[in-house]
Amino acid sequence: MTLVIGVDFGTLSGRAVVVRVSDGAELGSAVHAYTHGVVDRHLPGRTDQLLPPDWALQVPQDYLDVLRHAVPEALRAAGADPADVIGLATDFTACTVLPTLEDGTPLCELETFKDRPHAYIKLWKHHAAQPQADRITEVAAKRGEGWLRRYGGLISSEWEFAKALQVLEEDPEVWAATRYWVEAADWIVWRMTGTYLRNACTAGYKGQFVDGSYPSESYLAELNPAFADFPATRLDAPIGQLGQSAGTLTAEAAEWMGLPTGVVVAVGNVDAHVSAPAAQAVAPGQLVAIMGTSTCHVMSSDVLREVPGMCGVVEGGIVPGLWGYEAGQSGVGDIFGWFVENSTLGHEELSERAARQPVGAHGLIALDWHSGNRSPLVDHELSGVIVGQTLATQPEDQYRALIEATAYGTRLIIETFRESGVEVNELIVTGGLQKNPLVMQIYADVTRMPISLLDSDQGPALGSALHAAVAAGAYPDIRAAAAAMGRVVHGAWTPISSNSDRYDALYAEYRTLVDYFGRHGNDVMRRLRKIRREALR
Amino acid sequence: MTLVIGVDFGTLSGRAVVVRVSDGAELGSAVHAYTHGVVDRHLPGRTDQLLPPDWALQVPQDYLDVLRHAVPEALRAAGADPADVIGLATDFTACTVLPTLEDGTPLCELETFKDRPHAYIKLWKHHAAQPQADRITEVAAKRGEGWLRRYGGLISSEWEFAKALQVLEEDPEVWAATRYWVEAADWIVWRMTGTYLRNACTAGYKGQFVDGSYPSESYLAELNPAFADFPATRLDAPIGQLGQSAGTLTAEAAEWMGLPTGVVVAVGNVDAHVSAPAAQAVAPGQLVAIMGTSTCHVMSSDVLREVPGMCGVVEGGIVPGLWGYEAGQSGVGDIFGWFVENSTLGHEELSERAARQPVGAHGLIALDWHSGNRSPLVDHELSGVIVGQTLATQPEDQYRALIEATAYGTRLIIETFRESGVEVNELIVTGGLQKNPLVMQIYADVTRMPISLLDSDQGPALGSALHAAVAAGAYPDIRAAAAAMGRVVHGAWTPISSNSDRYDALYAEYRTLVDYFGRHGNDVMRRLRKIRREALR
Repeated sequence: MTLVIGVDFGTLSGRAVVVRVSDGAELGSAVHAYTHGVVDRHLPGRTDQLLPPDWALQVPQDYLDVLRHAVPEALRAAGADPADVIGLATDFTACTVLPTLEDGTPLCELETFKDRPHAYIKLWKHHAAQPQADRITEVAAKRGEGWLRRYGGLISSEWEFAKALQVLEEDPEVWAATRYWVEAADWIVWRMTGTYLRNACTAGYKGQFVDGSYPSESYLAELNPAFADFPATRLDAPIGQLGQSAGTLTAEAAEWMGLPTGVVVAVGNVDAHVSAPAAQAVAPGQLVAIMGTSTCHVMSSDVLREVPGMCGVVEGGIVPGLWGYEAGQSGVGDIFGWFVENSTLGHEELSERAARQPVGAHGLIALDWHSGNRSPLVDHELSGVIVGQTLATQPEDQYRALIEATAYGTRLIIETFRESGVEVNELIVTGGLQKNPLVMQIYADVTRMPISLLDSDQGPALGSALHAAVAAGAYPDIRAAAAAMGRVVHGAWTPISSNSDRYDALYAEYRTLVDYFGRHGNDVMRRLRKIRREALR
Repeated sequence: MTLVIGVDFGTLSGRAVVVRVSDGAELGSAVHAYTHGVVDRHLPGRTDQLLPPDWALQVPQDYLDVLRHAVPEALRAAGADPADVIGLATDFTACTVLPTLEDGTPLCELETFKDRPHAYIKLWKHHAAQPQADRITEVAAKRGEGWLRRYGGLISSEWEFAKALQVLEEDPEVWAATRYWVEAADWIVWRMTGTYLRNACTAGYKGQFVDGSYPSESYLAELNPAFADFPATRLDAPIGQLGQSAGTLTAEAAEWMGLPTGVVVAVGNVDAHVSAPAAQAVAPGQLVAIMGTSTCHVMSSDVLREVPGMCGVVEGGIVPGLWGYEAGQSGVGDIFGWFVENSTLGHEELSERAARQPVGAHGLIALDWHSGNRSPLVDHELSGVIVGQTLATQPEDQYRALIEATAYGTRLIIETFRESGVEVNELIVTGGLQKNPLVMQIYADVTRMPISLLDSDQGPALGSALHAAVAAGAYPDIRAAAAAMGRVVHGAWTPISSNSDRYDALYAEYRTLVDYFGRHGNDVMRRLRKIRREALR
């Protein structure tokens, strides 16, 4: 019996799962919470210095602690012999990025820099580099930089260049001491193997690495002369392809986890993207929606197209040999949570009552923009709307309308792909919301597509295990691993045609309101934000 | 010391107040609830026969019981000698209307008709005559009937003609037995004096009596040939002017109330309209807003103009010699109540938190159409909207946005008057909401007008008392009575200029959304209602 281990690094904790190579059976798992969680108030031990708004940092030792604790515990839970483990792979949130020395030592671990916020890991949801991101997009658009189209025309404040430029401009000493600007996804692999490779997925989606090169020096110099050499001096590491071996465990790393030193470690990867092969979604047109507080959509395709508002398209970004597309909805489960928090009824009661209604009976239509819109509008100044309330409107009516709004949002993304010439043939759901029957039926009805489910509670960790098996040579490629180890229940939910008919009419109303409020029919939402900022000044 | 009595007949109860003629002091009052309240489920004693939806009836004896109980109690509470009472006046909800015999006996009191719903009083909020109202408007518009303009272009299902036509078409036997089609406002005066006069106020606003005549026979015949003689055969009573004497108490009526038979009774009147002189609003441009679950606006003017969406303009409809305008908002306090009912916080907590916010800080804008829009759009297929919600939006934010929306609604009515050439110089508030400081300050800020308050908890009953004093000859006219007996606190609330500046920006957004959702920019609300009706079929 040969085994592999997948380790999924999330926002607040890491999870390890021990998986049988022959059939993907999950034999045991363990979770370890980060001691420092999300550092968004003050640096560790420095309660006297508050961080500015929109900052979100992490502490690198927390990641190593996951290896030290979760991996041995998962092995024990599986009753596994460590000698049977042939490979290990990891996936990470992204873009989560840190400055290091030549040997990978994080700057925040140096005595000199331990009180400097910019020396820490910037978590994906660090949003304080918005001014830098705005300039990055603006200057690129002005110069007609071709790579901008690969990102739907907009570069996010969450990504590598914006976060790096913020360090350069706000703490030049930290910047000067930075040898590498490293994705946490790659740093953890570097720590385990002693080898630093930049994985193709984050380099492409988050690092503006397009067709083999980074943005030009002349472009970067226009952002800031001192930024011109950023790729040459701080991103200069070889690219590793997904599912490749990055090396084997060092003696030190092997000891942390109680594993033999021969264990192969795969190139780093991203949580959403590894979920696709775990759900056997390795063919063109299989859209995987990772649905939780927000939703991330990943899909491979054999064609390269410009899709308005996508997060990015990267060659081999999900599986080798295909274009990997990413899109997203910035608020989904958190919108439902927000509503319930302010409601007199709980989730269960609301769901039960909402499920009893015929489609359209509540007379409402909502826009799911409470957290802005990522795809296809890429606009975080947008906000929520609900239309049609009467004195007879009940909480469950509004709750259902919000769920439907997120389903319309997914349908809009699917239609945007199709209208751009990228086929979407199947909808596969994973993440916490796959367990909500009301949500799943509404999504099937609204999209008129059967919904398949990734049949695992730990999709990303399972996806990493598949990559470990490929890296260790147990399967020739990720497709073969997906076929043997992936798990999907096809058609778990099927559309009810009479519901879909009525949803077609409601979705037409949604699109009209999307154009009006989101595409400059009426910029009231942006003006309300402006008035709000002035009022709070 | 001479005294008068005002009796206000509301939807659920009647209230009597004893008032000193010299200065309007309210010496004592009493309330008596209607035994049958609103009859909207089944006729008294006929639980086996449910009434159809949208029906709302009342029972005439309930009104007489108010005279029997509330008037003597008010006299006792005032410690008054009935011999000091020189006059009595009443005001009523409208259009509240019933079929009677030649002598005023309600048909529902006859053994033959006591089980026939159409024999009962149709309360103002009986909305089952909508098909008749639609035809009344349509045919008038098609024929270019001039009187239609006096009603902002639309005849309501609440009014005399629609309700009468419903009886004719649904219960011809009741119709055949109907000698008079009587406003309850006039029936109660008839019962007290033995004299039947149609008061100028309801005849004008609710009875389509324009410039001395009713709609023509040829028009009415086009609605239904049997309806052609309606005015000639069922509305044929002399018109009484407001503040005139209708006669003196009959022996029977005097006995009910414990009053002398010499007491003068004034011509009937309407609750909203009598409030104007109680607040000394007898000059052109003084807009009185009676603010409760909904808001009614009444204002006199020396000019006759077509004001889009007003409920009506009637010569002497509020005070003699001026054009009386009426407008309204169909949902105000009931929208706040609806929100609180579904909120985790109560009215007080919400108000306190909302009051602490700078204007515009919540980032929201709402439309106050949860109960449709009466003025200026006259469209009950409209519904509520709220724009700008984020995951940080709190219940008090939405609560405040709803209050503001109703204030924008009032400002829109004021601007519609002004844009039509009718001056509005002062805003006077009465009704339950005048006690809500948050609401009052927001209304002052949004309208940029100081707010005056009618300084009484029983504005309509006080207003009736003024009319009683005029009818009894204690004052030469209602203006003189208003000056001596009316009570207003001028400038109780004044606009805060920095708030008003920010509200100007928000109100501009409101108007844009009014045009979009209410004036056929996007008829989504009407379509949502249609989808809803189909879903519930």
